[in-house]
Amino acid sequence: MVFGPRGGGYDHAITVFSPDGSLYQVSYAAEAVKKGSTALGVKCKDGIVLAVDKSLPSNLVESESFEKIFQIDDHMATASSGIIADARVLVDRARVQAQVHKLTYDEEISVMALTKSIGDLKQMHTQYGGLRPFGVSLIVAGVDSEGAQIFVTEPSGAFLEWKATAIGSGKPQAMDLFEREYEPTKSMEETILLSLNVLRKSMDSEMTSSNIEVVVITTEGGQFNRLTPEEVESFIKQLPEDDEEEGEEGEEEEE
Amino acid sequence: MVFGPRGGGYDHAITVFSPDGSLYQVSYAAEAVKKGSTALGVKCKDGIVLAVDKSLPSNLVESESFEKIFQIDDHMATASSGIIADARVLVDRARVQAQVHKLTYDEEISVMALTKSIGDLKQMHTQYGGLRPFGVSLIVAGVDSEGAQIFVTEPSGAFLEWKATAIGSGKPQAMDLFEREYEPTKSMEETILLSLNVLRKSMDSEMTSSNIEVVVITTEGGQFNRLTPEEVESFIKQLPEDDEEEGEEGEEEEE
Amino acid sequence: MVFGPRGGGYDHAITVFSPDGSLYQVSYAAEAVKKGSTALGVKCKDGIVLAVDKSLPSNLVESESFEKIFQIDDHMATASSGIIADARVLVDRARVQAQVHKLTYDEEISVMALTKSIGDLKQMHTQYGGLRPFGVSLIVAGVDSEGAQIFVTEPSGAFLEWKATAIGSGKPQAMDLFEREYEPTKSMEETILLSLNVLRKSMDSEMTSSNIEVVVITTEGGQFNRLTPEEVESFIKQLPEDDEEEGEEGEEEEE
Amino acid sequence: MVFGPRGGGYDHAITVFSPDGSLYQVSYAAEAVKKGSTALGVKCKDGIVLAVDKSLPSNLVESESFEKIFQIDDHMATASSGIIADARVLVDRARVQAQVHKLTYDEEISVMALTKSIGDLKQMHTQYGGLRPFGVSLIVAGVDSEGAQIFVTEPSGAFLEWKATAIGSGKPQAMDLFEREYEPTKSMEETILLSLNVLRKSMDSEMTSSNIEVVVITTEGGQFNRLTPEEVESFIKQLPEDDEEEGEEGEEEEE
Amino acid sequence: MVFGPRGGGYDHAITVFSPDGSLYQVSYAAEAVKKGSTALGVKCKDGIVLAVDKSLPSNLVESESFEKIFQIDDHMATASSGIIADARVLVDRARVQAQVHKLTYDEEISVMALTKSIGDLKQMHTQYGGLRPFGVSLIVAGVDSEGAQIFVTEPSGAFLEWKATAIGSGKPQAMDLFEREYEPTKSMEETILLSLNVLRKSMDSEMTSSNIEVVVITTEGGQFNRLTPEEVESFIKQLPEDDEEEGEEGEEEEE
Amino acid sequence: MVFGPRGGGYDHAITVFSPDGSLYQVSYAAEAVKKGSTALGVKCKDGIVLAVDKSLPSNLVESESFEKIFQIDDHMATASSGIIADARVLVDRARVQAQVHKLTYDEEISVMALTKSIGDLKQMHTQYGGLRPFGVSLIVAGVDSEGAQIFVTEPSGAFLEWKATAIGSGKPQAMDLFEREYEPTKSMEETILLSLNVLRKSMDSEMTSSNIEVVVITTEGGQFNRLTPEEVESFIKQLPEDDEEEGEEGEEEEE
Amino acid sequence: MVFGPRGGGYDHAITVFSPDGSLYQVSYAAEAVKKGSTALGVKCKDGIVLAVDKSLPSNLVESESFEKIFQIDDHMATASSGIIADARVLVDRARVQAQVHKLTYDEEISVMALTKSIGDLKQMHTQYGGLRPFGVSLIVAGVDSEGAQIFVTEPSGAFLEWKATAIGSGKPQAMDLFEREYEPTKSMEETILLSLNVLRKSMDSEMTSSNIEVVVITTEGGQFNRLTPEEVESFIKQLPEDDEEEGEEGEEEEE
Repeated sequence: MVFGPRGGGYDHAITVFSPDGSLYQVSYAAEAVKKGSTALGVKCKDGIVLAVDKSLPSNLVESESFEKIFQIDDHMATASSGIIADARVLVDRARVQAQVHKLTYDEEISVMALTKSIGDLKQMHTQYGGLRPFGVSLIVAGVDSEGAQIFVTEPSGAFLEWKATAIGSGKPQAMDLFEREYEPTKSMEETILLSLNVLRKSMDSEMTSSNIEVVVITTEGGQFNRLTPEEVESFIKQLPEDDEEEGEEGEEEEE
Repeated sequence: MVFGPRGGGYDHAITVFSPDGSLYQVSYAAEAVKKGSTALGVKCKDGIVLAVDKSLPSNLVESESFEKIFQIDDHMATASSGIIADARVLVDRARVQAQVHKLTYDEEISVMALTKSIGDLKQMHTQYGGLRPFGVSLIVAGVDSEGAQIFVTEPSGAFLEWKATAIGSGKPQAMDLFEREYEPTKSMEETILLSLNVLRKSMDSEMTSSNIEVVVITTEGGQFNRLTPEEVESFIKQLPEDDEEEGEEGEEEEE
Repeated sequence: MVFGPRGGGYDHAITVFSPDGSLYQVSYAAEAVKKGSTALGVKCKDGIVLAVDKSLPSNLVESESFEKIFQIDDHMATASSGIIADARVLVDRARVQAQVHKLTYDEEISVMALTKSIGDLKQMHTQYGGLRPFGVSLIVAGVDSEGAQIFVTEPSGAFLEWKATAIGSGKPQAMDLFEREYEPTKSMEETILLSLNVLRKSMDSEMTSSNIEVVVITTEGGQFNRLTPEEVESFIKQLPEDDEEEGEEGEEEEE
Repeated sequence: MVFGPRGGGYDHAITVFSPDGSLYQVSYAAEAVKKGSTALGVKCKDGIVLAVDKSLPSNLVESESFEKIFQIDDHMATASSGIIADARVLVDRARVQAQVHKLTYDEEISVMALTKSIGDLKQMHTQYGGLRPFGVSLIVAGVDSEGAQIFVTEPSGAFLEWKATAIGSGKPQAMDLFEREYEPTKSMEETILLSLNVLRKSMDSEMTSSNIEVVVITTEGGQFNRLTPEEVESFIKQLPEDDEEEGEEGEEEEE
Repeated sequence: MVFGPRGGGYDHAITVFSPDGSLYQVSYAAEAVKKGSTALGVKCKDGIVLAVDKSLPSNLVESESFEKIFQIDDHMATASSGIIADARVLVDRARVQAQVHKLTYDEEISVMALTKSIGDLKQMHTQYGGLRPFGVSLIVAGVDSEGAQIFVTEPSGAFLEWKATAIGSGKPQAMDLFEREYEPTKSMEETILLSLNVLRKSMDSEMTSSNIEVVVITTEGGQFNRLTPEEVESFIKQLPEDDEEEGEEGEEEEE
Repeated sequence: MVFGPRGGGYDHAITVFSPDGSLYQVSYAAEAVKKGSTALGVKCKDGIVLAVDKSLPSNLVESESFEKIFQIDDHMATASSGIIADARVLVDRARVQAQVHKLTYDEEISVMALTKSIGDLKQMHTQYGGLRPFGVSLIVAGVDSEGAQIFVTEPSGAFLEWKATAIGSGKPQAMDLFEREYEPTKSMEETILLSLNVLRKSMDSEMTSSNIEVVVITTEGGQFNRLTPEEVESFIKQLPEDDEEEGEEGEEEEE
Repeated sequence: MVFGPRGGGYDHAITVFSPDGSLYQVSYAAEAVKKGSTALGVKCKDGIVLAVDKSLPSNLVESESFEKIFQIDDHMATASSGIIADARVLVDRARVQAQVHKLTYDEEISVMALTKSIGDLKQMHTQYGGLRPFGVSLIVAGVDSEGAQIFVTEPSGAFLEWKATAIGSGKPQAMDLFEREYEPTKSMEETILLSLNVLRKSMDSEMTSSNIEVVVITTEGGQFNRLTPEEVESFIKQLPEDDEEEGEEGEEEEE
């Protein structure tokens, strides 16, 4: 084969290192995530806020049935960015994992343990022949005996715990804003407003109650609640005017 | 290998990401769908209408025996566009899935669950070596305890729920018309007329009772009914004159 | 590898789509069929006529033992065009399939069901690595509770039911004639004459009782009968003079 | 890879069709047969004559032990041309097949059935990855309830029944002579003389009792008899003077 | 494929030697380690000190939850440099190995035996097709009946025991300093100070209690203790001024 | 890949035919044999003589322990030329085969049957993917109810029976001499002298009792006897002066 | 792929012969051995001496724990040169083999049998796809009922028995000296001195008790003894001045 300058051929076989020690296929899978829709996860005083951009290709799509925040268990949820069918496979495995853990040990799986099992499956897909990496990042959020926790697992299988985080195409702007405005002591309502404000900057079309999705998990009781379109609408109305032009900048930033 | 400019070699191995995070093989499979015959699925007040273009290569084909809308179960059906032999494999699996569900849980499988199992099989064919993606999109339509529902599963395994949708070569014109004329409160008869009108725009030859196929599923009772050639004929007669020239465009598209 | 302009490399690996959504290997297998000897299947008032060109490489071949129309069951037969050894494998599987069905359900397999099982095996050979498509088309003809039926399965696994059909190198001329002269109400004898007339146009050498093969299946009783050389001879004698030059045209037509 | 003009790369992978529908590997295996030593099979009034050129690389080879006509069963034998080690594998399988049939059904396997099982094994080697075709053609000759029969199986797995046939490098000249001089009513002795005369034309060195091998199978009783060197010698002496120069012509002919 | 001057194609398939006897893939995996964060392991009079640079991508990451020194067992720990997801896989296997050994033999696994099992897994990944080498080096440190021991396992599977060692991007400077200043008779406190001083030279940002991690294992009792941020802070305060410029040199050194 | 003129790429994959019907890998394996050390097998009135050149790379090798003629059974032996480790594998299999035969049938395996089983294993290595041919030829010699027999199996799996034969780098000269001087009625002693004289012509260094190996198998009783260094020495002394200069040629050949 | 002049592509696939009958991958693995550290094995009147250069990359390595001479059994040991992780795998297998033999037959495995099992494993890695050859040579030394024996197994799987031998980068000089100075009647002490003298010539740095390793096995009783650093030190002190410059020569010699 004759290839262009990039990768020099090392990037076609997933089980191959390049001379500088890189696994190109894993980086390319990360590109699929960078092109994905934006998803946010933020911790606050009372729990966790997850918010995603679920802009639809047509107004004929049944938006109610279309969810991009998946409930894993009573106390855990995940938001994805990247290849949606890949996300579904991972979410299914995570749900089974959570069920199996509950049946085997008679206690809920911890957020960390669930995240790790997702990461392990992803890593395996970067090391064995005949498989491609998963082209999706997942925000795994939940409440367990350690309190509220938010993790991000990358296509490589690596994961980190975050106070506030974003994945997808809007990540650079979102992280920029979070680093300046995030405060862990904010209330759930304040944090929802912060999240929607951040999410709005990364959206191509106007934010409405049908093209975003918001889920909160309360630390107290660990309850998963998907906000109704009406609730989302009322929060959108409270948002300040969007007169900032920051959204245009920061696009060269790399993950 | 020396390739042309397209894909740069990343598009030959299905388990490989390109530098921009694309899975070319999945996109190419989607092209097979874009060249397929047009199929429509539309929800209405009383149920669902499925209509497909089944133009035949010769008048010597037994058109009665040739179906492009497959019944999955009493309350579900699917219409396909793309590689017909691939569609058959998926339809067979779907029928088995529906049967197994009924025997195991003593209740009918939900439309969503069936769609998901099709999507999962498709996703698997994009991630494992030694397999190619399915070159077909399916409209999965049915009635269950959630009411009437219409899903489209793509070669990637992704799926969305729709109010009214189209797949195949006539999709762009069809969606254009649906977005302008679709109303969920129309009756079954009105919706059949809308569907035939839309389908007619995407057909190369004159619409007759033998080169289209129409199936309706009623919300009440969830009954699957394939319209007889006589019923189809009578609806065709009620169509307005086709004086628009939109149908003439896009004729370079191939099945 | 460096390839010529055709296919651009997408045509070497059977499980790979080209950018325009084609599966080249399947198309190339279809080319093997286009180069095969001509075979016809025609329905008539009383049943089905199958006729094939079995021109032999030498007069030293024992033509009696050489059959190109295979009996599957009492009521079913198949004629092939393409790679003969591939056809034999499919015929063997079909026979086993028919036997298994009879033993399991205590009734004869339907023509459609048998055709479908052949089509499924062919489709599988286009989707899984380590296999090549079958380079053969089969006319599957038979009589069951639905009456007389004729199907053609292609290398892709797709199949259609026909009133009258042809496969192999003589297909373009044959279909042309059938479309003009076929009438479903003709008697068995008239249909045999039509078939031989059509077949004669596609043959390189003069038609004799030893270089063609004719099988009829009667709707009444579903009996398979291979015509004796004497019977074939008498039909050939009844054919009109072959003064038409149509055979030379139509060769650019594609399937 | 960069290849010469031939095959354009389609000829390296056995499970791949070329754009014109050819399977090059199968054709190339047939070339191995065309380079093989000549072998003949001829039917006559009383049975079958098999004759092969077994010219040896040195006079130090024990010619008595070196056989190129293999006995399969009491009533069947096979002569090969092409890769000798491939032939042995097929002959072994044929012997086992014949044994198994006898034990299972308490009757001898028919010549046709045995030929078919060899053809099926050969076909399988042209369709599945990780295998190469058998580079050998076999003349399968025998006597069963259908009388004396001679088949030739090719590397593709295809087979035909013959009155008189030849394989190997001398095939073009041999077939030419057979087509002119073969008569089914000749006696065994006349047919042996015809066969040796034909075989002599294709040999590089002078024909002697140690560089050819002759086997006859009598229809009456189906007895396999390998001629002794003395018997062969006496037939050679009866041959006419070899003054014809035909052997030089006809070499461009293809199988 | 056309490659640049490096490796000349030998570096694409992991199971292939180059003409000079190298396994390039293993070297490239070692490159992944050289780009990793720095990790140190040092023996002292009273036990072992492990220290790592765990600089985080953002201040929103929950640094407490992010560990790069993993506890294997009561008496053993490991620090990694390279692909973090690969490290996790190896650590998991090591933990299982330690558990299994305890259950089977009712005694703790020795540090050497555990190291060897990690090395064997790594070696296997360099010799079998369909796997890539692990892109990570591990410092395995622990106390058993042989006393305190520190091993380093490389991507090749090779391992060595060290008095003081470093892996990752800061290895050249660190080894340089260790070779000059290491003394086995230093106390635990002195050794922590030496380690932090060495680690500081290899860090891009200022060393704080949240971007490094320190673990000590005492020979007496073999206790694993992770230093609290406060303890780390107090050690950092005791470090001398960092006015040396050596950190800039020695970068050409190879492992 | 871009290759030189030879083979045009057909010689890289063992299961692939070249356009002229060759299996290059098998030919190349035969080259490994042509570079091997010379081995001879000669039949005489009283039995068989095997003689091999076992020149050693250094006088520090324990020549007594180094055998190149392997005993298979009481009455059979084999001498090899080519890749020595390949020979060992085949010899091991042959020994097991002989043992199994004795246990199963309570009689010794015939020389022909043993040779055939070696040939079959070799053939299999030329037809299945993922294997390379054996790079070794074996002289299989033994005495059974058919008397003394000598076979040569080639890398292709083909084998022939010989009166006198040679393999390895000295084969051309040896066969030349054998063809001129071999007489089957010679005594064992005369035949040993002939063999040593032939072997000497193909050796680079002077023939001594430690750089050749001689085995005889007597027809009467089928006894395997390895000549002692003293016996070899006494035969060497009886050899005529080696005043021919043929031995000097062919020195570029490598083992 | 486009390759440089060397090997012409035949050196990339281990199961492929080059046109001259070479297996390049095996030769390249042998290169890995030629770059390895030097190891010696010498027989003497009283037993066997093994000596290896174990120069370490840093003085921080725990040299006591680092062994390059592995004990297999009470009476056997092995020294390696080449890829150390490969050696470990082979040593482990050898130990298991020795254990299994003892348990099965209630006697110790012979040195030859153990060597053969290592050679067989190595050969298998040169013939089957998906594996690479072992890049290591092993000196296998031991005492059994046949007395003291020293074997060398190469990456190809071939092995020879030696009186005195060397592997690794210092082999040419070492063999040169051994051929001149080796005497089988020397005592153990004299042989240790000879070995150290030989080893010293091939070392880059000064020989000390911590950068070499010496093991002796006594014929009487077959005892394995690893010399203590003090014992090694005392032998080094007895060595003559190293004023020869021969070590610089002979480097072009090939194995």
